[in-house]
Amino acid sequence: MRIESDLLGKIDISDNVYWGLHTERARRNFRFSNYKVPKALIRALSMVKKACCMANHELGFLDENKAKAIEIACDEICEGRFDDQFPLDALQGGAGTSTNMNINEVIANRAIEILGSKKGDYNVVHPIHDVNLHQSTNDVYPTAVKVASIFKLRELSNAVAKLQGAFQKKEKAFAGIVKIGRTELQEAVPITLGAEFGAFAEAISRDRWRTFKCEERLRVTNLGGTAVGTGLTAPKNYIFLVIEKLREITGLGLSRGENVPAETANADPFVEVSGILKAHASNIVKIFNDLRLLNLLGEIELSAVQTGSSIMPGKVNPVLCEAAMQVGLKVMANDFLITETVSRSTLQICEFIPLLAFAILESLEILTNLDINLCEHVLEIKANEEKCKEYIDKSLTIVTALLPVIGYKEAENLIKEFLKKGKTDFRAFLNEKQGKEVVDRMLSPYNLTSLGYRDE
Amino acid sequence: MRIESDLLGKIDISDNVYWGLHTERARRNFRFSNYKVPKALIRALSMVKKACCMANHELGFLDENKAKAIEIACDEICEGRFDDQFPLDALQGGAGTSTNMNINEVIANRAIEILGSKKGDYNVVHPIHDVNLHQSTNDVYPTAVKVASIFKLRELSNAVAKLQGAFQKKEKAFAGIVKIGRTELQEAVPITLGAEFGAFAEAISRDRWRTFKCEERLRVTNLGGTAVGTGLTAPKNYIFLVIEKLREITGLGLSRGENVPAETANADPFVEVSGILKAHASNIVKIFNDLRLLNLLGEIELSAVQTGSSIMPGKVNPVLCEAAMQVGLKVMANDFLITETVSRSTLQICEFIPLLAFAILESLEILTNLDINLCEHVLEIKANEEKCKEYIDKSLTIVTALLPVIGYKEAENLIKEFLKKGKTDFRAFLNEKQGKEVVDRMLSPYNLTSLGYRDE
Amino acid sequence: MRIESDLLGKIDISDNVYWGLHTERARRNFRFSNYKVPKALIRALSMVKKACCMANHELGFLDENKAKAIEIACDEICEGRFDDQFPLDALQGGAGTSTNMNINEVIANRAIEILGSKKGDYNVVHPIHDVNLHQSTNDVYPTAVKVASIFKLRELSNAVAKLQGAFQKKEKAFAGIVKIGRTELQEAVPITLGAEFGAFAEAISRDRWRTFKCEERLRVTNLGGTAVGTGLTAPKNYIFLVIEKLREITGLGLSRGENVPAETANADPFVEVSGILKAHASNIVKIFNDLRLLNLLGEIELSAVQTGSSIMPGKVNPVLCEAAMQVGLKVMANDFLITETVSRSTLQICEFIPLLAFAILESLEILTNLDINLCEHVLEIKANEEKCKEYIDKSLTIVTALLPVIGYKEAENLIKEFLKKGKTDFRAFLNEKQGKEVVDRMLSPYNLTSLGYRDE
Amino acid sequence: MRIESDLLGKIDISDNVYWGLHTERARRNFRFSNYKVPKALIRALSMVKKACCMANHELGFLDENKAKAIEIACDEICEGRFDDQFPLDALQGGAGTSTNMNINEVIANRAIEILGSKKGDYNVVHPIHDVNLHQSTNDVYPTAVKVASIFKLRELSNAVAKLQGAFQKKEKAFAGIVKIGRTELQEAVPITLGAEFGAFAEAISRDRWRTFKCEERLRVTNLGGTAVGTGLTAPKNYIFLVIEKLREITGLGLSRGENVPAETANADPFVEVSGILKAHASNIVKIFNDLRLLNLLGEIELSAVQTGSSIMPGKVNPVLCEAAMQVGLKVMANDFLITETVSRSTLQICEFIPLLAFAILESLEILTNLDINLCEHVLEIKANEEKCKEYIDKSLTIVTALLPVIGYKEAENLIKEFLKKGKTDFRAFLNEKQGKEVVDRMLSPYNLTSLGYRDE
Repeated sequence: MRIESDLLGKIDISDNVYWGLHTERARRNFRFSNYKVPKALIRALSMVKKACCMANHELGFLDENKAKAIEIACDEICEGRFDDQFPLDALQGGAGTSTNMNINEVIANRAIEILGSKKGDYNVVHPIHDVNLHQSTNDVYPTAVKVASIFKLRELSNAVAKLQGAFQKKEKAFAGIVKIGRTELQEAVPITLGAEFGAFAEAISRDRWRTFKCEERLRVTNLGGTAVGTGLTAPKNYIFLVIEKLREITGLGLSRGENVPAETANADPFVEVSGILKAHASNIVKIFNDLRLLNLLGEIELSAVQTGSSIMPGKVNPVLCEAAMQVGLKVMANDFLITETVSRSTLQICEFIPLLAFAILESLEILTNLDINLCEHVLEIKANEEKCKEYIDKSLTIVTALLPVIGYKEAENLIKEFLKKGKTDFRAFLNEKQGKEVVDRMLSPYNLTSLGYRDE
Repeated sequence: MRIESDLLGKIDISDNVYWGLHTERARRNFRFSNYKVPKALIRALSMVKKACCMANHELGFLDENKAKAIEIACDEICEGRFDDQFPLDALQGGAGTSTNMNINEVIANRAIEILGSKKGDYNVVHPIHDVNLHQSTNDVYPTAVKVASIFKLRELSNAVAKLQGAFQKKEKAFAGIVKIGRTELQEAVPITLGAEFGAFAEAISRDRWRTFKCEERLRVTNLGGTAVGTGLTAPKNYIFLVIEKLREITGLGLSRGENVPAETANADPFVEVSGILKAHASNIVKIFNDLRLLNLLGEIELSAVQTGSSIMPGKVNPVLCEAAMQVGLKVMANDFLITETVSRSTLQICEFIPLLAFAILESLEILTNLDINLCEHVLEIKANEEKCKEYIDKSLTIVTALLPVIGYKEAENLIKEFLKKGKTDFRAFLNEKQGKEVVDRMLSPYNLTSLGYRDE
Repeated sequence: MRIESDLLGKIDISDNVYWGLHTERARRNFRFSNYKVPKALIRALSMVKKACCMANHELGFLDENKAKAIEIACDEICEGRFDDQFPLDALQGGAGTSTNMNINEVIANRAIEILGSKKGDYNVVHPIHDVNLHQSTNDVYPTAVKVASIFKLRELSNAVAKLQGAFQKKEKAFAGIVKIGRTELQEAVPITLGAEFGAFAEAISRDRWRTFKCEERLRVTNLGGTAVGTGLTAPKNYIFLVIEKLREITGLGLSRGENVPAETANADPFVEVSGILKAHASNIVKIFNDLRLLNLLGEIELSAVQTGSSIMPGKVNPVLCEAAMQVGLKVMANDFLITETVSRSTLQICEFIPLLAFAILESLEILTNLDINLCEHVLEIKANEEKCKEYIDKSLTIVTALLPVIGYKEAENLIKEFLKKGKTDFRAFLNEKQGKEVVDRMLSPYNLTSLGYRDE
Repeated sequence: MRIESDLLGKIDISDNVYWGLHTERARRNFRFSNYKVPKALIRALSMVKKACCMANHELGFLDENKAKAIEIACDEICEGRFDDQFPLDALQGGAGTSTNMNINEVIANRAIEILGSKKGDYNVVHPIHDVNLHQSTNDVYPTAVKVASIFKLRELSNAVAKLQGAFQKKEKAFAGIVKIGRTELQEAVPITLGAEFGAFAEAISRDRWRTFKCEERLRVTNLGGTAVGTGLTAPKNYIFLVIEKLREITGLGLSRGENVPAETANADPFVEVSGILKAHASNIVKIFNDLRLLNLLGEIELSAVQTGSSIMPGKVNPVLCEAAMQVGLKVMANDFLITETVSRSTLQICEFIPLLAFAILESLEILTNLDINLCEHVLEIKANEEKCKEYIDKSLTIVTALLPVIGYKEAENLIKEFLKKGKTDFRAFLNEKQGKEVVDRMLSPYNLTSLGYRDE
């Protein structure tokens, strides 16, 4: 046991832990959820801390020994070696101060160890005066949220690309399969199954572009702005250097905003980014519900990833589509949270940024997991050509495809005659009436997917 | 290692685990979030499983040995002894089938052990034919969600009562402190600080009533309805007995719905219950923001639970109020999820019930934690009488309190005269003009809080 | 033209209009939406104003002449004769003050006319000193929102009952039609089409109960509480009398809350009521999407209310189902608005109540219109028995219905044998194997809908 | 009266109206809300119709006479001359077919008149065969929604620029006023009022950039794709020409998507655009709430646009801030609707696009109105320098500004000494201790707003 104290009094800290008094108080104060502060955020924060240390060292505000020890501690945290030293509730209040103090304390105590002293001997390395030097939670924490988000955004962008690729493969594979299109859950005009999957691929490709582009919105940070963006208590040369150090460490094209108080006071870029994640989620929900519908109608067969019922032998359910939809809905719920935290924030900072960070990192993570894990499922989808043919051959709307050749009047007459005869195979009837060669040509995949007809 | 197999093929299962092939497949299929199926749901499910076993045993469908072993296994799960045997992702697809199979397999393997055989020897106890006998995921799972929710709802109701009590104590303690009321963030007419806290207490008391009453909506189950609520494959006498057994085990006033297919097909009661939790959340968000405002204005002092800044010595932030607001927002986000899962469900069941269950149990849990943990913080709030007096004595609107005595005209004249003189202490001026005795009487706590004035 | 003036200056008012300076200022200030303050709210407000006038008159605060003129003006507004005199934007700020002043001014000017003077001669009847006597926007406006909501809630409750009736008629009509049930958009076990519609009817019947019961939450008002619920400036005997007058005028079981400041400060009852409307909306969205699905599958035929396409002759779309879903979504969006306005309100009142009022009255109105207008559409739904039979006869899951007779083993063997033979009519195969009499009995509507099987 | 008929039967149409049978049926079918289809959409649709007509004419599909008459009719509709001929409910089902038929019928009947015949004589000009030639609702309607949105987006972008300008003017005007910054609703470190308004301006400037940039997402249309994006029934040369015509008519940089079925099937670009509008709304809600807070604290004075209370003389409320917040919330609710309509759409089109169109056009319109109408209110804001000074001179945190000169230790000592003496004017105390010149320099507006201190 060691004892630490501040203005509010003394507190016992176990010798085993690297965190200190501030973390311990926060641990006891915030007991609402079972969610911990996201690891991705801790790692990003360790990079920010390292950048600050390097800048301070280079400018002579921290001596070589301390600086090296702090940097090593930051690297170790970044590698995940101290993941268990971040026990705080993700739904903490305090604008991230507790998490900032948590990492300050862990870095300090680890650096103290490295320098050969015992945890708690803050004369060696001090969590605030050394580790947090020239910083405020209000600049390092939002910067770390952005860094963490960018890393995850890149993973997501790659995952989206993979999913797009999977749909494109099916687009090609199904290019020759003519089927009936459906609008408003009613049979409309013919299309190919390939075009249908091509539409999925294209929507996902827009998501790829979106997620790729929106990194820009997160690159502008308020690092160096300290408490309210004015840089109060931080020296000018440090402010200019620290962002360079962070660029170096992260390899990301980060910058400091031109109006740092504005970057500190308004968290609207997160609303914009979350809106983009939600656009992807909307596509996911729509597309995987479409796959359920096509599977229900029998035009495609989803692969059986597990049996679906204990009571009905042989039943297989579209469980991955359902899971995908649920993930999409969760992202929408997170978008709500992000909008709320931003729009409810007051004056110089966004005090609800811990919840914001939790929500946006969750969205990024579950979407990435989803996109990667569903590729194989998409690739395994099988077409049921026979079923596609069955629907389309019965459908009166295929007459639409012949309009360029026969005109409206004749089309209507053909339908009337067919209905009068009470037959069921409309295509056979058309073959008989118009010649199989014409019908086949007008209903060929080539004809159906080349935009419009050639007016000869 | 043992090998299990089904229609989809063989799979290796570690000897250490109690789960089997169905769980293992689901574990590999659903890798989206890091959230596990809530423990509260697993425990409720173990009670449902036990009730089914008891009914089946009593009616002769399960022999004494098997039944006893199954019941013991259920009890052990309920006590939390096998918490690590439920590894599935909370965002799983499949309407809960995987979780149902997970518990079926754990019960079966544990029962097999109890009966002296080795895990995987399903001839001894079979996960489906014995443990799941006369059941479908579609009846046992929603029933378990309701049982788990009711238990948590009772905890919440108690927690709400505690929070109400805390506010009521402050209502009494602050009864004598006159202050200025504020509407639209502008000074309005006088009120007492006690009345202000009394309003908080009353809003929370409505929440108590709501959370207490809404248990009713969850008591009606579809247990015995099997796959689509028609009870197909289940014997009539079992259907009638099983709900009695569940009532016995849980001690809850559960019943079977009159129209079981309807209970199975429509999950709207959860929307209603979630709406009630959201009403509580709205109060939480509003009230704890009010406390932040009163603290900002200096009329109350929130206790310092931790220091607030590394850069600004002595700054203390309303971190628990902020956390409370974040919890409230999370409940609102969950209400969104619950509404989505219910309104997007199709035909005979709600296929998105795993997400629904996750959301409602999370809301119940975090609200309960919040209400309990904030009581002390509420009790520690201190009034700053001087500050209250300072605001009110300067406020011109206190003349409103004298209207019954002096009338509008005179009131306006007094204000004009006062403004002309350029003074700042309006109350002193009123004392001088109308006599201190009258002013004190009209602005006394008694007068301000007894509804209306006595027209003498 | 007449000229009116207040502390902020003079303003020209057209002689044609009954509104005055306060309304005119608000008209110029709030130019955001094209939505006017809901008529239902204006009418409810006229009742509240009348109640206040009657109480003031009976207690001698208003003389007979004035009082009668004011009451007549209130009645005329309630009849809708002055609907065009309420020009204010529904998205106005100011907690409803502008709307309250609007009606005060219209009442005053109309009463002045009745008493033989010219509009603007406020010595005859004064909008504030007479019409608004002993009132504040903060008590009359929320009371009017509740009165308006209760009237609309009753209309909704009747409309819900009608919709329930329509579904019940179809439940009976379709009682004998056996079909395949579907879970997770996959074929499950048999059910009857009647049971399916019975489930719709039952869900709607829960909505009926909900909407009926939730009137209670709105009956408790803060009338008499004036600005912050303490009744400041209002005499006690007036406060006790005015609610009686309002009960009399409206015929509703209204009361004054026990803690009037709490009723004034917290608008949570609206969140609860809106949650209940949202539960109904969830059912609407789910059920009318189900009807689209059944229509797509061909088991039912929705009546053709209009042709669906200019390009595809004969296409008919489920347009009323789609409209119903859109109405449901709008109610969900309104629930969001109501929760926001309540949770963002501060201290002694809900300043965003104009938006709250707009949202809740819109939800009530569009749901009522929907439920009434869709009854006929529901009644016109036709079953396609042949299609129902076609699906079920092919479905392997019907073997489940025979389990009580043949057992699992035999069921599995039958399926294997059938699949090996490559046939398509499973029922014919079962007839052959088990005897038509047994199959028909087990798959009879009676057997499928009586809960469970009799274990003989 | 004239009689029109289709497959569903005959219907009477008043001679006065330009709409026909399809509109009339829809008018009777959709009676849910009181909202009409937005005028902006009708006007955009008239442009699309004109483009189609011009392309058809140029390619010889429509003769000169018909084409000219149709084009004139389109122009007249675009000018608003027939606004009363579009009676349909905004919450209509049918993916916009009814609105498309409405304009087809109005154009046809007006063109018939122009050509000297009587309304209803569709041999002269036919709503479907002529006006709707080579079109489907599914391509012209979404295209019109995009055209209408772009026009409104440009208006919004201009309005946002104006609001930004207003905040920038205050930024300059308030540049010299030092005040205390606040984080988490607690006093933090000094800042200038100018910097605070500069942060507002910068956030709004991001909104300007966003709204400007997002036009791109709407420029890609599916015009020419007909029913499902394959262009079925439309000639190739028409498809290539029609988008050119629309570009010409609208003056917008529109194009046809590369994958037209994808543009038709997925409405995700609207989710992205709505997310951007929501980012603006978040800033509006945050900033205008901030203005309420600064007004409450007395550091700024909002101008009095109307008196605020009938009961409390002289009370003025921040009514325009409240209205702004309500408008922001409405935009968030619309974002919910847009996400729902997109994510719930199925297969080849978005069937809920009428609600989507209503929501996005409402958001664009109310935001534009808001931004324009609030500029003056922002410009009229007055600073209360004395109050700003009062807060900051008492605040202990100003010692932070001296840290670069005196160091932490000395700062702490000063605070202790000051507190011991029980004084209230901390700045006077600092002047005494450190010299007024130093204190003034460190707390000068220049020093506080130039980022960081110069490390000398």
